[in-house]
Amino acid sequence: MMRMFASLLALVAAQPALAEVVATAASPDKAITVAVSIDNDGRATYAVTRKGKPVIADSALGFLFTDAPKLDRHFALVDARTTSADTSWTQPFGEWQTIRDRHTQLVVRLKEKDHDRREMQVTFRIFDDGVGFRYTLPDQPGLHHANIADELTEFALAEDGTAWWKPAYGWNREEYLYEATPISAVGTAQTVATFRLAGGTHVAIHEAALVDYAAMNLQRFQGTRFKANLTPGSGVPKVSRDAGFSTPWRTIAIADDAPGLYHASRMTLNLNEPNRLGDTSSWIRPGKFVGVWWNMITGKWTWSRGPRHGATTANVKRYIDFAAANSIPGVLVEGWNVGWDGDWFGNGKDMQFDQPTEDFDAAELQRYAKSKGVYLIGHNETGGSASHYDAQLDRAFKYAQDHGIPVVKTGYVTDAGQIERTDPDGSQHREWHEGQWMVNHYARVVETAAKYHVSIDSHEPVKDTGLRRTWPNWVAREGGRGMEYMSWAGKNPPNHEANMVFTQLLGGPMDFTPGIVSLKGNAGSDIPSTLAKQLANYVVIYSPVVMVADTPEAYARYPGAFRFIRDVPTDWSETRVLNGEVGHYVTIVRKARGSDDWFLGSVGDEQARTTTVRLDFLDPGKTYTAQIYRDGPNADYRTADRHAITIESKPVRRGDTLTLALAPGGGQAIRFVAPGSGTRAK
Amino acid sequence: MMRMFASLLALVAAQPALAEVVATAASPDKAITVAVSIDNDGRATYAVTRKGKPVIADSALGFLFTDAPKLDRHFALVDARTTSADTSWTQPFGEWQTIRDRHTQLVVRLKEKDHDRREMQVTFRIFDDGVGFRYTLPDQPGLHHANIADELTEFALAEDGTAWWKPAYGWNREEYLYEATPISAVGTAQTVATFRLAGGTHVAIHEAALVDYAAMNLQRFQGTRFKANLTPGSGVPKVSRDAGFSTPWRTIAIADDAPGLYHASRMTLNLNEPNRLGDTSSWIRPGKFVGVWWNMITGKWTWSRGPRHGATTANVKRYIDFAAANSIPGVLVEGWNVGWDGDWFGNGKDMQFDQPTEDFDAAELQRYAKSKGVYLIGHNETGGSASHYDAQLDRAFKYAQDHGIPVVKTGYVTDAGQIERTDPDGSQHREWHEGQWMVNHYARVVETAAKYHVSIDSHEPVKDTGLRRTWPNWVAREGGRGMEYMSWAGKNPPNHEANMVFTQLLGGPMDFTPGIVSLKGNAGSDIPSTLAKQLANYVVIYSPVVMVADTPEAYARYPGAFRFIRDVPTDWSETRVLNGEVGHYVTIVRKARGSDDWFLGSVGDEQARTTTVRLDFLDPGKTYTAQIYRDGPNADYRTADRHAITIESKPVRRGDTLTLALAPGGGQAIRFVAPGSGTRAK
Repeated sequence: MMRMFASLLALVAAQPALAEVVATAASPDKAITVAVSIDNDGRATYAVTRKGKPVIADSALGFLFTDAPKLDRHFALVDARTTSADTSWTQPFGEWQTIRDRHTQLVVRLKEKDHDRREMQVTFRIFDDGVGFRYTLPDQPGLHHANIADELTEFALAEDGTAWWKPAYGWNREEYLYEATPISAVGTAQTVATFRLAGGTHVAIHEAALVDYAAMNLQRFQGTRFKANLTPGSGVPKVSRDAGFSTPWRTIAIADDAPGLYHASRMTLNLNEPNRLGDTSSWIRPGKFVGVWWNMITGKWTWSRGPRHGATTANVKRYIDFAAANSIPGVLVEGWNVGWDGDWFGNGKDMQFDQPTEDFDAAELQRYAKSKGVYLIGHNETGGSASHYDAQLDRAFKYAQDHGIPVVKTGYVTDAGQIERTDPDGSQHREWHEGQWMVNHYARVVETAAKYHVSIDSHEPVKDTGLRRTWPNWVAREGGRGMEYMSWAGKNPPNHEANMVFTQLLGGPMDFTPGIVSLKGNAGSDIPSTLAKQLANYVVIYSPVVMVADTPEAYARYPGAFRFIRDVPTDWSETRVLNGEVGHYVTIVRKARGSDDWFLGSVGDEQARTTTVRLDFLDPGKTYTAQIYRDGPNADYRTADRHAITIESKPVRRGDTLTLALAPGGGQAIRFVAPGSGTRAK
Repeated sequence: MMRMFASLLALVAAQPALAEVVATAASPDKAITVAVSIDNDGRATYAVTRKGKPVIADSALGFLFTDAPKLDRHFALVDARTTSADTSWTQPFGEWQTIRDRHTQLVVRLKEKDHDRREMQVTFRIFDDGVGFRYTLPDQPGLHHANIADELTEFALAEDGTAWWKPAYGWNREEYLYEATPISAVGTAQTVATFRLAGGTHVAIHEAALVDYAAMNLQRFQGTRFKANLTPGSGVPKVSRDAGFSTPWRTIAIADDAPGLYHASRMTLNLNEPNRLGDTSSWIRPGKFVGVWWNMITGKWTWSRGPRHGATTANVKRYIDFAAANSIPGVLVEGWNVGWDGDWFGNGKDMQFDQPTEDFDAAELQRYAKSKGVYLIGHNETGGSASHYDAQLDRAFKYAQDHGIPVVKTGYVTDAGQIERTDPDGSQHREWHEGQWMVNHYARVVETAAKYHVSIDSHEPVKDTGLRRTWPNWVAREGGRGMEYMSWAGKNPPNHEANMVFTQLLGGPMDFTPGIVSLKGNAGSDIPSTLAKQLANYVVIYSPVVMVADTPEAYARYPGAFRFIRDVPTDWSETRVLNGEVGHYVTIVRKARGSDDWFLGSVGDEQARTTTVRLDFLDPGKTYTAQIYRDGPNADYRTADRHAITIESKPVRRGDTLTLALAPGGGQAIRFVAPGSGTRAK
């Protein structure tokens, strides 16, 4: 039927409507600009350029409500204010010790000229390497409560190109391989979604500070235009909030190349609120851990009780001994508690988070671990029964605190849309891992754990949006395909890490569980990786808590390689990505915190590849010893030579160049030992 | 974290899990087979082959609920029963007088082996040219009420190829151009979605009998695998139903070519329930109509009152005179009632559906029309205020009945997600045009109208799923980009009709409003079409009610061309698509009901094209007079020669061949006058 407004049609045809720019601002270095326009229907849009070239074409702003007219037009500008900031802050632990937060802020206040005269504010923060923006809906006569059906935010990429993405709404808890497709062939993607525009510019779209809101996915609408698509929940609106709140930040990192995107990812942390926990150095413990785990993944042991039960007192003591002997501070134990014996997948109602099984002597193991200078890492698998877990949170973390357990790994193994939620009135609901209710659940877990000085490593989590800045005890999470997928059929391909670094890992640390030096998975199957790559992943994939995931027996068979795993730290003062292409290769160097040693990791894809790096990161005037772990002659992820590794040392200095030769499916790890350094980094 | 089930992983990797075929059935001609499998997690899938080649690879079945575990695994087969049917039925009006319904039916009963022991039935109907299937959820102890968060139904196309689709969830009420992209580049598509697989097989996915349920969209998940994605509503679940119901049929039409898909579309009607209105011949009136409309679309007149008000008594009388002079039975009047003067777009709260404006003398026009043998067609524009309309339905249709108005065009002009719904308790909700609540609203309108012997032509409707079989008074609808888009900027491209015939129009008739012989739109802009194409569309685009959409003044300027518009009927006993390619061209012949005359329409795209058709549809032994309206020399949609038309007659017989030369943006229309035929078809 008739459309009264020719300008609406123009929008359909992707022609600019009669729109007027009402506010602009630029990054401190002037490279990136944001322009906010209002067209003659009062629709507000934003656009982003970099170095004068469009990156995000005019893209809609606004909200769809379940119980009120949508908020996306009839707008007039109330005012627009620009400020600037240049500060620095310190991470208690992390990839970088000091992070600079330098940006221009533009706050645009828009108000409906008629209808309900509602006000919507949009705050942009424009960094030299990206843009974040969020909405604020003030409490006002026309809007006391927001029942949000969806956000109308668009991201209209200015050019086609290549996208690296994984699907949203899958049953498999975000554990999908990243696909590389044309941007114009993306379906509905979880963020982080990474794009290389035809002209070469790299863009990563994500969000920061996801609090009391549903996670944002990107639904491709037409061409290269994406719409925000919030994760649903069982409640009516996707988000229900009293007005007077701000949404999470929508972030657009922009760089010339893939390494630039990694550096730009600090924006995510900058857009989160500062640390709320104060000095946590006494109780948050970054560090490596071993665990009763890989033998379950390969099928040798079981989580449930029985003849092959993994979490027995005797087994755990062997892991404690191994950890102590190798200065690894943590020992994870899975399957230690009551509740695993039945059909727990998607149904964790039997799980008791303070009741060990009878073959797990908690008091004795606490004593034994302490005597060896080691701590246990707890494990709370909910099977997706989140309300059941909610009811036990204090008990669970008091149990951990009482037993000297500083870190708990949580799990929510159930299909997407199948989280159990039982309300106080007894009503049953099925939630999504990334809906508003679960976002709040994960926060409740972390906040409750903090009271007991327990850190959380969430598996089957909501994605990372930088909340570790605010809650440093949220030390790591999963949310992707980790090393476990190398055990089973459908193994991760060789380029998986080079995909992950420039996609999911731009969001934050992942508990990837590297270091399977045996290169053997379920039923003796071969793992398609070289041995050197298993070492390189300790540098390439950042996490403050990192598993030394193979068995003690396996490490005993590869003592040379294991030395690197013993030496590599998990906390850094500086990180630089030296080179890389999304889905092909990446080389990262990190400087150990509290040490002058540097560590390098480089991983590739299925192709052999040689790259050259300059050692410009080393201190001038010093001679370092490079302890090199590289793919041996003929090393190849496809053959029995996958274990071939060459370990050698040589002196190097700042300005030297090193040639990194990666085998097919290979990698390289290097420790640069500074003069006067101890034999082992912290 | 750990996955216990290797088979789940196998599914991710698109490797067949350890699945066993538990039921199969084939179409009556054995060309198409359906196989239902259950894997070792008890997941049920279906697959479709045609002539031994996969068309739909193993695809999931099941439901996600908001308040109960999902129903998609742990299944065991209860039983599978196959029956066959071969019947025929008669359309009171339509493209075909008699429709054959020949199929094999396979009813598969699946029940959870453990957990809630819920039963789910899937009924397949396998035709020689496609498959329909629907779920039945019986009332049972574990499932008395279904709150459906989404359907888990998948459609895994077996090959990549080309897709023709338009996006779901857009703001513009489904009025988008169809895009042609790789299948693996579809976003989230409304149905009908049409696919040409790499091997050439044509597939159209849609649904039939959408009743008390949300419309199904197709969300591409990975590669060429699509998931059902139901349209949301403001209510918690996308669908809320007491158990003991069946879903709409999910339909997969399969053919060698585009014409085959058109013929296969009869499946949609076959899968709907029979006519519930009995003999409607006295009050449902297929036929052409003129109207006070195009002058509003071009901006000359207004819907609202004032100096340029269109729906005045004097203007309407001129249209009545024109209709009577040309044996056109209907005269549409828009803007005749109170409520248009304010800001009605998305807000029809002022609309009064039984209150004419003071310059519209309803009694006089009723009398005048009747005296001329013409009826008025009513118009109820709700501006999306559906509850406001609900409250007036009886008044609105009683008004129509009292004023001799047998057809009412309805309108819901508001953005997607913005339908006004006010519940009896006063609570406000915002609905989508295709959500469950609106599906039920459209049905309420049609059922209420039937009580008053009024037919409905829904604009901004829910898509057509063949319900005209059950409710023949639902005569037509819009739901796509009709001729009005030729008036404004962003005009329909020349291949629009060749897209529509093989996509949306596979769902059912559309009120496209053809026949703009002036080829002039808003502000005197040129319409990119030849004159001959405007005629051809009367055959190509089926609707039982068809507008003669231009002004009387325009038709007076093109009397030769207008003759075809006067002659062409709107009701047919037979329809055949002679040739065509999706988005490029199509030639259709239809036999006038109650006559031996045939009519041919052929339309193309922006290229000149010549096709040859054999006149095998004519009766043998008769000589027909072909009255041909073809693009004139140099006719071209881009130039002032777009009006060039050649009108000629020649004798033809069955078996003759005719060469159809289409100009760029052109078309051709032919009436085959049977010997002894009157000068005008019914």
